Amino acid sequence: MLRMLGRILQLEGLLLVVPTLVALLYGESPRPFLLTLIPLLIAGTLLARLRARSDFFTREGYVAVGMIWLALCLTGAMPFWLSGEFASFWDCLFEITSGFTTSGATILADIERLPRGILFWRSFSSWVGGMGILLFTLAFLPKVGGRNQILVQAEMPGPLATKLVPKTVQSTQILYIMYIALTVAEIFAFSIAGMPFFDAVVSTFASICTGGFAIWNASFAAYNTACQIIAIVFMILGSLNFALFFLTLSGRIKDAMKSDELRFFLLVAGAASVLVFLNILPLYRSPAEALKDAVFQVVSIQSTSGFSTTDYNLWPAFSRSILVLLMFVGGCSGSTAGSIKCGRLLLMFRCAKRSILRLSHPRAVKVVKLDGKIVDENTLNTVFAFFICFCILLAVGTVAVTLDGADLVTAFTTSLGAITNVGPGLGMVGPMENFSFYSGWTKAFLSFMMVVGRLEIFPILLLFQPSIWRHH
Amino acid sequence: MLRMLGRILQLEGLLLVVPTLVALLYGESPRPFLLTLIPLLIAGTLLARLRARSDFFTREGYVAVGMIWLALCLTGAMPFWLSGEFASFWDCLFEITSGFTTSGATILADIERLPRGILFWRSFSSWVGGMGILLFTLAFLPKVGGRNQILVQAEMPGPLATKLVPKTVQSTQILYIMYIALTVAEIFAFSIAGMPFFDAVVSTFASICTGGFAIWNASFAAYNTACQIIAIVFMILGSLNFALFFLTLSGRIKDAMKSDELRFFLLVAGAASVLVFLNILPLYRSPAEALKDAVFQVVSIQSTSGFSTTDYNLWPAFSRSILVLLMFVGGCSGSTAGSIKCGRLLLMFRCAKRSILRLSHPRAVKVVKLDGKIVDENTLNTVFAFFICFCILLAVGTVAVTLDGADLVTAFTTSLGAITNVGPGLGMVGPMENFSFYSGWTKAFLSFMMVVGRLEIFPILLLFQPSIWRHH
Repeated sequence: MLRMLGRILQLEGLLLVVPTLVALLYGESPRPFLLTLIPLLIAGTLLARLRARSDFFTREGYVAVGMIWLALCLTGAMPFWLSGEFASFWDCLFEITSGFTTSGATILADIERLPRGILFWRSFSSWVGGMGILLFTLAFLPKVGGRNQILVQAEMPGPLATKLVPKTVQSTQILYIMYIALTVAEIFAFSIAGMPFFDAVVSTFASICTGGFAIWNASFAAYNTACQIIAIVFMILGSLNFALFFLTLSGRIKDAMKSDELRFFLLVAGAASVLVFLNILPLYRSPAEALKDAVFQVVSIQSTSGFSTTDYNLWPAFSRSILVLLMFVGGCSGSTAGSIKCGRLLLMFRCAKRSILRLSHPRAVKVVKLDGKIVDENTLNTVFAFFICFCILLAVGTVAVTLDGADLVTAFTTSLGAITNVGPGLGMVGPMENFSFYSGWTKAFLSFMMVVGRLEIFPILLLFQPSIWRHH
Repeated sequence: MLRMLGRILQLEGLLLVVPTLVALLYGESPRPFLLTLIPLLIAGTLLARLRARSDFFTREGYVAVGMIWLALCLTGAMPFWLSGEFASFWDCLFEITSGFTTSGATILADIERLPRGILFWRSFSSWVGGMGILLFTLAFLPKVGGRNQILVQAEMPGPLATKLVPKTVQSTQILYIMYIALTVAEIFAFSIAGMPFFDAVVSTFASICTGGFAIWNASFAAYNTACQIIAIVFMILGSLNFALFFLTLSGRIKDAMKSDELRFFLLVAGAASVLVFLNILPLYRSPAEALKDAVFQVVSIQSTSGFSTTDYNLWPAFSRSILVLLMFVGGCSGSTAGSIKCGRLLLMFRCAKRSILRLSHPRAVKVVKLDGKIVDENTLNTVFAFFICFCILLAVGTVAVTLDGADLVTAFTTSLGAITNVGPGLGMVGPMENFSFYSGWTKAFLSFMMVVGRLEIFPILLLFQPSIWRHH
């Protein structure tokens, strides 16, 4: 396990080379990066040299995931800390966890004054996090046992149940190629739309992973309408099941369009956009502007990105309540988006409908289907278990955050934003605000919540199960 | 079905005799009651004379429940309307629905100026509602089919799974005797503690049914500490499974104390009381006073009553967030309390735990137990379906109420208070506020939500299923 950790640290050291080069390019000091990178590579190489044990069990898989996240976030925070731009180490930890988990919540009040190297590392971390999540959900989790079934059937229902290609390694490669292709396409699109190259790169990094780190205090309001529309498109693409792209590329576009989850995602986003648009219309002089902001905000929240083109904290309560509901929805399974996800919601709705129908027709409908395939009861139970755990964590999180002086709306949306990886919320953590007012403990707690949410809750909860440690 | 409706109308006519006598006793005009009572008895008698058809199916049972509630609320609102003390018919409808559903939400800003007959009818309606719910959950629903299983196993788990006594009619009678005995005991206790007789009667009516209608603007703060402590005791008793009283009375107190649901209820109430007490302590000069208010508010909210001894709207966000969570909990199954209820929550938690354990020990624990008995998967599915429907209704309700000028906290707690039958919430619907500022449409919508919550959601949802109407 330590050997694996060593490899991860080596990898992080190599990743840090990129922001080092960016810092050098813009004539900034590469010191914060070099001081992190060099010890990382040394420690990583030493650890990786340890002899491998062959008995790598399910339990150890979960423990490894926990350790890797801890190591990644602690070491990833170092460049922030060494840069001297952050008020405390908790702030650095919060910021990098927010990056790696693709949440996009920030403790920075004035983002613009940061050196470019640091800004780059911030966005780059969320891009890497998005890639890591694709690896994690598709390649790593099935290996560590029980989740296999859940992953294939509940998280990436339909098309992916028949896997992309037979071998996991190969499908991982295909996913990465698609992820990188989308990244290149978005950088290109932004550049054409008039965004400076540095902005295009970091905005792409923050949006294709549905992260939401902006490098301007005004978030996406700093860019023109064309750039905002491009961001809408790529945030949607980032929250779709990547297997659908593969189906589309291999000419099976009809199969891709038949995905229940895709339809549900588009239906929710469409309906929410219309409702918000109608509600905010009186606040705008131009209907086109209102429509653009409505769609941007709906997509940004539903895809769990958290960018903003306007201060939706000032919108009527109706629109704000819809945005809060969208935080619960999230994107599709097999994407970089977080939250409950459309597939799970769809399964829960269908289960509920079945139970109600059973009351009046006891011998009627007995199975729940997704994409025309029967979903087994065990999977349905796991989906419900996920939802219950989600609700409990949300409740505990909300109560905990109120102790730190937050009002109810702020506390609720802070907790929800962390666990769903949306990032910003309403009230004191609204789109034009930041998380800096929270105490160190709350920041550490929220960092933990972001990781729990990002790993779809169960792996971390398992670490708190005494029985997992007992039979070691 | 019309015949049944006739009987219900007759019954309501007879019930109205009581407030008529109260009005006469206090020298007030009995006109509003007589004008409702006489047509009710005539219409009821005519309808009841219709010939009975023997084919009374499940479907018709649900339709009957819907019609009965509509008729009860519309006719029950008449005395309020005829009294001229209410601003609109929507207000009257809201108030009586709040009564029959034992919610205790009010649209009255100045309660004290109402005539005693009207005040009596208001509290009496919630007492009747509480009794009706015991009838409904124990006697009526099992008759109309599919819910039988759910009722016996999910709603009244444990002791009641072995029914009180073999015959339904007999157990109904035992329940009523217990309900009336508790009522008499509480009136007696209040009188001894120094409450005027009229107050003792109406306060008992509003508290034993976990309703929450107060006849003073200051709610229970108008009474002394002894009365408040008595109210705490009887609100707890009202939210316990009535089958446990039967077990206790028949000497099987040990069996009663073993109830998982009872323990869960007391654990939650105890833990919440301690947390709230510690949080509000700095606001009080005397710890005893703080403890009393903390326990009163916790019990009042968890039992879905909604009385108050203080304006908890002014408490710190931590305590308010705990009170909001308690709204989700509610009392035990087989009680007059509403909301999700302890039994369902316990089953959901145990299911979630099972699913998590399965991940690391795929061949481990396979069943969920309650009171040592295995709960079948179908029941668990129904419990989850209930929770999903609850969440959807809560979300829809919140969004709908924001359209009426409520802020997010107000809208959320309004919707939650209606569906859980707690009644008051926070913000503009806090304990010292009222629901009068809402529009007629919202009041009608909230009345509907209260009925849906009171009937445990499914029966009303079934009415919206097209298939229930098709095979008629």
